[in-house]
Amino acid sequence: MNDQASPSKLFFASDYMEGAHPLILQRLTETNLVHSAGYGTDEFSESARAKIRKACNAPDADIHFLVGGTQANATVIKSILRPYQGVIAAETGHVSTHEAGAIEAGGHKVITLPHRNGKLNADSIERCIQGYWDDANHEHMVMPGLVYISQPTEFGTLYSLEELTKISEICHRCNVPLYVDGARLAYALACPKNDVTLPDLARLCDAFYIGGTKCGALFGEAVVLPRHDFIPHFFTLIKQNGALLAKGRIAGIQFETLFTEVSAGSGKVSAEGVSAAVSSGETSSDETCLLYEMVGQNAIAAADRIRAALVQKGYEISFECPTNQLFITVDDTQKERLEALLELSFWEKRPDGRTVLRICTSWATDQRDVDRLIEIL
Amino acid sequence: MNDQASPSKLFFASDYMEGAHPLILQRLTETNLVHSAGYGTDEFSESARAKIRKACNAPDADIHFLVGGTQANATVIKSILRPYQGVIAAETGHVSTHEAGAIEAGGHKVITLPHRNGKLNADSIERCIQGYWDDANHEHMVMPGLVYISQPTEFGTLYSLEELTKISEICHRCNVPLYVDGARLAYALACPKNDVTLPDLARLCDAFYIGGTKCGALFGEAVVLPRHDFIPHFFTLIKQNGALLAKGRIAGIQFETLFTEVSAGSGKVSAEGVSAAVSSGETSSDETCLLYEMVGQNAIAAADRIRAALVQKGYEISFECPTNQLFITVDDTQKERLEALLELSFWEKRPDGRTVLRICTSWATDQRDVDRLIEIL
Amino acid sequence: MNDQASPSKLFFASDYMEGAHPLILQRLTETNLVHSAGYGTDEFSESARAKIRKACNAPDADIHFLVGGTQANATVIKSILRPYQGVIAAETGHVSTHEAGAIEAGGHKVITLPHRNGKLNADSIERCIQGYWDDANHEHMVMPGLVYISQPTEFGTLYSLEELTKISEICHRCNVPLYVDGARLAYALACPKNDVTLPDLARLCDAFYIGGTKCGALFGEAVVLPRHDFIPHFFTLIKQNGALLAKGRIAGIQFETLFTEVSAGSGKVSAEGVSAAVSSGETSSDETCLLYEMVGQNAIAAADRIRAALVQKGYEISFECPTNQLFITVDDTQKERLEALLELSFWEKRPDGRTVLRICTSWATDQRDVDRLIEIL
Amino acid sequence: MNDQASPSKLFFASDYMEGAHPLILQRLTETNLVHSAGYGTDEFSESARAKIRKACNAPDADIHFLVGGTQANATVIKSILRPYQGVIAAETGHVSTHEAGAIEAGGHKVITLPHRNGKLNADSIERCIQGYWDDANHEHMVMPGLVYISQPTEFGTLYSLEELTKISEICHRCNVPLYVDGARLAYALACPKNDVTLPDLARLCDAFYIGGTKCGALFGEAVVLPRHDFIPHFFTLIKQNGALLAKGRIAGIQFETLFTEVSAGSGKVSAEGVSAAVSSGETSSDETCLLYEMVGQNAIAAADRIRAALVQKGYEISFECPTNQLFITVDDTQKERLEALLELSFWEKRPDGRTVLRICTSWATDQRDVDRLIEIL
Repeated sequence: MNDQASPSKLFFASDYMEGAHPLILQRLTETNLVHSAGYGTDEFSESARAKIRKACNAPDADIHFLVGGTQANATVIKSILRPYQGVIAAETGHVSTHEAGAIEAGGHKVITLPHRNGKLNADSIERCIQGYWDDANHEHMVMPGLVYISQPTEFGTLYSLEELTKISEICHRCNVPLYVDGARLAYALACPKNDVTLPDLARLCDAFYIGGTKCGALFGEAVVLPRHDFIPHFFTLIKQNGALLAKGRIAGIQFETLFTEVSAGSGKVSAEGVSAAVSSGETSSDETCLLYEMVGQNAIAAADRIRAALVQKGYEISFECPTNQLFITVDDTQKERLEALLELSFWEKRPDGRTVLRICTSWATDQRDVDRLIEIL
Repeated sequence: MNDQASPSKLFFASDYMEGAHPLILQRLTETNLVHSAGYGTDEFSESARAKIRKACNAPDADIHFLVGGTQANATVIKSILRPYQGVIAAETGHVSTHEAGAIEAGGHKVITLPHRNGKLNADSIERCIQGYWDDANHEHMVMPGLVYISQPTEFGTLYSLEELTKISEICHRCNVPLYVDGARLAYALACPKNDVTLPDLARLCDAFYIGGTKCGALFGEAVVLPRHDFIPHFFTLIKQNGALLAKGRIAGIQFETLFTEVSAGSGKVSAEGVSAAVSSGETSSDETCLLYEMVGQNAIAAADRIRAALVQKGYEISFECPTNQLFITVDDTQKERLEALLELSFWEKRPDGRTVLRICTSWATDQRDVDRLIEIL
Repeated sequence: MNDQASPSKLFFASDYMEGAHPLILQRLTETNLVHSAGYGTDEFSESARAKIRKACNAPDADIHFLVGGTQANATVIKSILRPYQGVIAAETGHVSTHEAGAIEAGGHKVITLPHRNGKLNADSIERCIQGYWDDANHEHMVMPGLVYISQPTEFGTLYSLEELTKISEICHRCNVPLYVDGARLAYALACPKNDVTLPDLARLCDAFYIGGTKCGALFGEAVVLPRHDFIPHFFTLIKQNGALLAKGRIAGIQFETLFTEVSAGSGKVSAEGVSAAVSSGETSSDETCLLYEMVGQNAIAAADRIRAALVQKGYEISFECPTNQLFITVDDTQKERLEALLELSFWEKRPDGRTVLRICTSWATDQRDVDRLIEIL
Repeated sequence: MNDQASPSKLFFASDYMEGAHPLILQRLTETNLVHSAGYGTDEFSESARAKIRKACNAPDADIHFLVGGTQANATVIKSILRPYQGVIAAETGHVSTHEAGAIEAGGHKVITLPHRNGKLNADSIERCIQGYWDDANHEHMVMPGLVYISQPTEFGTLYSLEELTKISEICHRCNVPLYVDGARLAYALACPKNDVTLPDLARLCDAFYIGGTKCGALFGEAVVLPRHDFIPHFFTLIKQNGALLAKGRIAGIQFETLFTEVSAGSGKVSAEGVSAAVSSGETSSDETCLLYEMVGQNAIAAADRIRAALVQKGYEISFECPTNQLFITVDDTQKERLEALLELSFWEKRPDGRTVLRICTSWATDQRDVDRLIEIL
């Protein structure tokens, strides 16, 4: 089945190297000839919204399905900010570095703050906002109008519920909304060290998105606005930003599938069971979880095994990361050897000449590949 | 299979009411677990590009796969224009009316000209450009920097090769590039009255896109820039506009499939044959066409039958349209009767109180539904 | 004193060909070494604001001094509109034609409506707004978010109080603000046919500007927002748009002078008297008017004399215009003769080959030049 | 004459607290009724351009007169950059901090680098540009497209000719243009420690502006583009950015006056002499300098005297600054005492609780006020 890929190399470079979870393709296939309305007003999208509202315990949430992460960030941020405002982000935030200037192209400054393993500190957020208002010249400056954080961060680290609560309190005390980029949210939700749930996000944030592209979908990000009409005319803004799918159902069907309950614990998804469950809204198993959570669990299980092997074999872990990304610092000899056998991600060159490499697992990681990887390590 | 749709209503409202051509889903499924690079640098996208270059007889063309039509238009237009320039379009052009101001949000004026059944006239384009340069105050005005037309137009009409050649000559004489929106290009290519081929478009235009969303794909538009590097750093501009897919392969696989040769004439696509053909690049049949053309043929055949029935039954055709859209002018009684049985598109209210309705066929139109529609008419 | 200008030609090309009303220069000179705060927070600007509020009978108005007309229009319009909105304007409106795409560069569509001698019709405004909301697809379109008109219009015509009241009522019923471009407002206020006063503008509009550049100032436009905080953080928006003067006093002093009461009727301004009046806020004369009104009166008196001469000598008046602009339709022979002796403005070429020329008077028009012009005519 | 200012307080808060150099007002007055063309095409502006070209030894330079600093920066930067590019600046650069996000509002990221007393280091510029191109993911990032520095910097410090030459070499080797903000350029040119001349700037930079607003003009900044047509259609871009003066002559006359040769050394400008010189282009004195240089000399002389007094009296100089700005670090007692008697600028709060205050001199600083200031110190 995997005949076109190099058979000798193992792929741990990223979590968007394959298609979609098989259940998604199956569901797309079985609904293919159903007629439905365009632009996300179809029944599949409505059903997906209902499931996400339920999972988030946010009955009034507005939910929109966009295509990709940069697009979701740019559209949401631009739509929340007024022209005189900017968005606070970690200097390592995706919007600060890897979106080709999309936020600035939308007219807004990214106000960067120092990070610690990709995370912002609540106090530094407060100092930044307070500093603006305390500055006698603040009317000549960019007003902080939104706080952007990622869960997990670009370094794979997690905000604890306590940290997120504190950031949320500061934001709301300062009248600045909080937005969370959940491009890899499945891998946070599935992580045993994580204590932030979807209902927590809906309660503490003004906007967040549940990532699909990196979490088992062909594409798609579900933007959740817990308070109805928080962004007026957001539909039109989505359209204007080129982020509206004519066949909105294609995103809707994927999230409907991802937010269906499946049998957990079995370690294996039963396609037939899920498909029936998506349609009926029920599942026969006693122990269930959302497919979105199961997608994360596979990656986390693989990452945990790899992490243990790395420690055991004496690799230098660059920084602690409990989710599906692992970072190791290697010298040139190690680097060459690993890169001959593995597809990894280059992360950065250290001042001492050594290199940080990223190992990334996903919903699609095969445990046999993990075995082989551990052998190589 | 169609269990969720109302069984009593026929759907002729638009060409994006279903999923994708079955061969596309099949191909997505069979390639699903292949590992590949991100952002459109994968082998599937490369193969799709090669096939499109061949079909367009444009060996040096840059080809990028974007997600949707408004996005493709906004990204291409913004990327070609300099800040002091605007884009000429028909006042009925998609960019003029139905893109929620995306072109203006990108900083550019849409310079609208009168249309005739959705088409621009070469002379009026020349007068507009020449008028700008002749105006003593032109430095205070927006410079025409691009011409935008649609093939087929928003009214389903077609530019002839002679018309397109004349527009192209004027554009190039005036040093203004020409861009063609091909959201429904399959329905032009399949139309017997059409004499503009893909190589003609590649020869006469500076940029165009081959529509996927309305022509059998889940989503996706292939932007073709016949001259290499016509838009420098277009990759980054696509990213900045939120139009870059992390899993670029999902678009690539779809276009690779659409640009595969399939047996023509059989009136039926053989899934197995196509799938083998996509992989091998060959087809065993003597009579072949691209799947993209076949997708159009089904719609045109259906539209032709409906058109003949409309004429025969004395319906007032609002304006001549040879492709997959038909427009009829009806009074309120007719309107009510039709809308009870059919899903059609409201087009406009005429000053005399009557209504123009649109009947739209697609790659997915079932000829049995056409039979029933003709009966109802 | 006028040694550098061609002595043989008369200048009636525009109303911005000279410096400033002498009293303005005098006032700038006498206040030159006073220290004051920057960015318009100085005492001169405060005094100017107080005088304008009084003249407009708008005690709560926010008033900001910007530099030029295009800048004022772009800054105000951009600041009022949300990203999904556009501004309604006559197709001949300054924002539609002669601002080099500044409104679109700010991200917004100019929704153009047909005009009659430069004026919009209240009903067509209503149809446009209502048409948007009635359209089933309006979420895919640009929402009318502001109405822009000019008083006097670009054709020198005037909205009557009745017309303006009707437009204002429609705007407010539709929840769309009304903005008036008063680049040449002095010439409206001084016109006997005008019945729209400054308090009327402040009562009926949500924003307007009192033009300085074309009405006797070196530069400067006073943006009046009758309701306090109608545009939140407008100061920062002005700065961001490059429209904030570090030496804001230079604009403030000019408007303070223009809104000082001077002796009317004398046909001549007494520099000493005005200067004292600006400082003390009082004038000794019984019959007074604002210097801003007097500036207009000189132009209107000159235009009236020229108009009468044109009619008497059988020139074809292109269209009725009661203010400081006169439009005549001439054939090529007339055109050549006039242009040899006069600096006029080319307006447009008529389809019949004749030309419309504009004769423009101003605060600076010398009545002896009017004598000579009438002789030439 | 100075009756409206508080007699008991001395003003050293900034260099834009007064009107204009008296010769400018005189020249505006004597040319006031001359007719001239609009939008900077007048004879005064042409003459000013010729004088600036000569002073810069840049015979092909394009020169445009804009209104203010933020406006000049935003318009130039936006016009040079392509959408995928950003501008490198010190984190303390005016564009980074005090322009209310104008650069980002124009669609571009300000790529900030660390500073040393307001200055960028050539090597860190090179690392930034090189780092972009070396990054495997650079197509997802903002390309450095321009380098912005200020001379003098926002801290009043100066780039030496050697430093500027090195930065220029790096920029041109990397194919990135160099832009210099000369808001306070007169104070650099007049500084004995400065070795960068106007011809040096024209030779080493791709664009710079000669500041008027803070250097003796009512307003105005002369943008110099040493190579003709470096920014195509810049006139239209200026208009679009609301930066085009209808009465362009008002800026032209000011720069024509500032770039007139006046008797140097006399310590006093003879108004009559200058005025004749502006008109005739000649001056009778043997020892001459440009009025623009003389404007700077007054400020530098005052600053030098104050600096010497500060050192002598044991004040802590916050950092070395050779131009017209002086920074002292004071405790709360000192601060209160000084602020009771002086108008100074608050600069920043130090972590140790002390305050940095700025003392600023200008073209308008009266040496008697310097005497009184030194007494107070």
